[in-house]
Amino acid sequence: MNDKPVYLDYAATTPLDPRVLEAMMPYLTEKFGNPNSIHTYGREARRAVDEAREKISQLLNCQPSEIVFTSGGTESDNLALRGVVEAYRQKGNHIITTAIEHHAVLHTCKALEEKGFEVTYLPVDEHGLVYPEQVAEAIREKTILVSVMHANNEIGTIEPIEDIVKAVKERRPDILIHTDAVQTVGHIPVDVQKLGVDLLSFSAHKFYGPKGIGGLFVRRGVKLVPQITGGGQERNRRSGTENVASILGAAKALEISIEEMPKEMTRLQKLRDDLIAEVLKRIPDSRLNGHPSQRLPHNANFSFRGIEGETLLLQLDMNGIAASSGSACSSGSLEPSHVLLALGLSYEWAIGSLRLTMGRFTTYEDILKVIELLPSIVEKLRALTGFTV
Amino acid sequence: MNDKPVYLDYAATTPLDPRVLEAMMPYLTEKFGNPNSIHTYGREARRAVDEAREKISQLLNCQPSEIVFTSGGTESDNLALRGVVEAYRQKGNHIITTAIEHHAVLHTCKALEEKGFEVTYLPVDEHGLVYPEQVAEAIREKTILVSVMHANNEIGTIEPIEDIVKAVKERRPDILIHTDAVQTVGHIPVDVQKLGVDLLSFSAHKFYGPKGIGGLFVRRGVKLVPQITGGGQERNRRSGTENVASILGAAKALEISIEEMPKEMTRLQKLRDDLIAEVLKRIPDSRLNGHPSQRLPHNANFSFRGIEGETLLLQLDMNGIAASSGSACSSGSLEPSHVLLALGLSYEWAIGSLRLTMGRFTTYEDILKVIELLPSIVEKLRALTGFTV
Repeated sequence: MNDKPVYLDYAATTPLDPRVLEAMMPYLTEKFGNPNSIHTYGREARRAVDEAREKISQLLNCQPSEIVFTSGGTESDNLALRGVVEAYRQKGNHIITTAIEHHAVLHTCKALEEKGFEVTYLPVDEHGLVYPEQVAEAIREKTILVSVMHANNEIGTIEPIEDIVKAVKERRPDILIHTDAVQTVGHIPVDVQKLGVDLLSFSAHKFYGPKGIGGLFVRRGVKLVPQITGGGQERNRRSGTENVASILGAAKALEISIEEMPKEMTRLQKLRDDLIAEVLKRIPDSRLNGHPSQRLPHNANFSFRGIEGETLLLQLDMNGIAASSGSACSSGSLEPSHVLLALGLSYEWAIGSLRLTMGRFTTYEDILKVIELLPSIVEKLRALTGFTV
Repeated sequence: MNDKPVYLDYAATTPLDPRVLEAMMPYLTEKFGNPNSIHTYGREARRAVDEAREKISQLLNCQPSEIVFTSGGTESDNLALRGVVEAYRQKGNHIITTAIEHHAVLHTCKALEEKGFEVTYLPVDEHGLVYPEQVAEAIREKTILVSVMHANNEIGTIEPIEDIVKAVKERRPDILIHTDAVQTVGHIPVDVQKLGVDLLSFSAHKFYGPKGIGGLFVRRGVKLVPQITGGGQERNRRSGTENVASILGAAKALEISIEEMPKEMTRLQKLRDDLIAEVLKRIPDSRLNGHPSQRLPHNANFSFRGIEGETLLLQLDMNGIAASSGSACSSGSLEPSHVLLALGLSYEWAIGSLRLTMGRFTTYEDILKVIELLPSIVEKLRALTGFTV
């Protein structure tokens, strides 16, 4: 990364860990079989897929048969929502979610509304928190599914999923609960039994695995109408030739991430806290978005009044810092983040956001560089637009 | 592949070409950005995706905006069928396809029947050919989509898509035509303008690219309801972070395949013809399945009376030959192939099938090995079950 900017956009995607690539290499070269073939090459590929599934299920604390591999987090969210509501349509047509979900959930809910489903979009508090009691109160007779993300991709707020599940299941054990855990799996402890959810989405490229591979935990007994049909792979829940090398890469990546998690969480939390403290101290008219403590260890999200986020990003990039204004999936749009608006931020604050997300290869020097450069860049941009603090 | 069997199952999957892996490597290491990020890393990834799309569109003779990347052939088929019928449902509910399609099409048609669509499954002749006039005659007022594969994955028969398109469009230019070209792209010339189709599916791991990546050509003006919604990637037709390295790999793989196609087609055709001639000569009560001449240059599909396909495969595998009895996606099932039954084969002939598909790394020695070993293996198995010719 010599002449390249310091990378502080780990929430958008992470580099593939060299140890993961090394584990994948045999399956990108001589072990190329299709796991559905019954000959030597096929059986060797099948074994790799089986072992990867076994490993991932152990790490998430579920059964191998409860893991469905997909092409990534977005497909997992789609399979969870579309698959469940199609299977349980006879039972009801109401879905509960939140205003701050990833677009993979929000836009899918919009698509389902066009098919006759009704969706409640719960508001969040100023830190982005959803309250369990609020979810329970939104339950209707026709409610079949609740989908609340484990941690928000923009502001890093960690939702009280365990308590939400309890509050919902206490009233209505039959309602299924999905969580988009794309931002948490591999970053903070995720145990599907402890969380109590029925479905959970994850994506390998968010935890140093390859792009194009993800998975969905589907609790035994939960019905799911497949959204991609064909050869009947993944126990008839998702057809298509298994992406062997990437499935193996996902398992290896998750194993490493969980192994290093205790040490890494502490290290990143320290970097994050120093960064937050210094930025808020050095830059007037700035604020931290998201929960002050109940947030991802590697996420800092700021707003600077009088600043336009995209302009700030380009200035940072030219000064050797790669960051984001929110979700990578929405960049290019000049709309303020739906997440920040849901927190109650005014348009003025919402458009001036900066997300800095750290990771495995972030050093203290990287953070020092931001602390050193950011205040003057913000000052310069404010001067250009005539903004006075 | 030293101590490994000779691989003759290229139709199931192909090894990743080392030149393709080499092209992918920078994007599996330092160039890891999310194409949706606006910083240096993101722009670098975006450029790679754009260039790959450009290259593939040139090779298939269409516009870059007409290519949608997916996770593979099965997803492409699903997006084509589900996406089109959902978009044109107001217009009609009838689909025409054939009895010998891949399960990605057949099972999707079955799923659509449950949603109120009507499907005509056209029969084929004894060589697996669909007749253009037959397709045209199946048209009803409510017909919105025709889906006929470009070449069959089991028997290698190449369908007269160009003539089918003409026959259909002559009567009803508004009917959309999809072809599953998973077995042809990279193997025989495929030009979407010449074929005249509106949608065409392809999969990279069938032409020496990585698994987990494919695409769908969607002619400009064709409406498609996205089946995976979220961040709005692929011009809102297929959401999810782009699988950068694999997209680039798909483009490189297609480029190489098309470059080497003229020479390679001639070489494989010679191997195939010698193989077919020798097998039919040396093994009594044997037959070639599929069209004698209008077939994929690398496909040979036999039936041996009195033989059970899976038993034969295991014997071949132990003797150093990796082959298939039909589609990899159906192996493990003891049902005879739906394709062979559609040709009119009796159960007895249909269960005794063997598909040998050759490719880039197949040598004449490999074929000689089959010619030498296969007759005695078949003879031994027949003796075991008391079958007499």
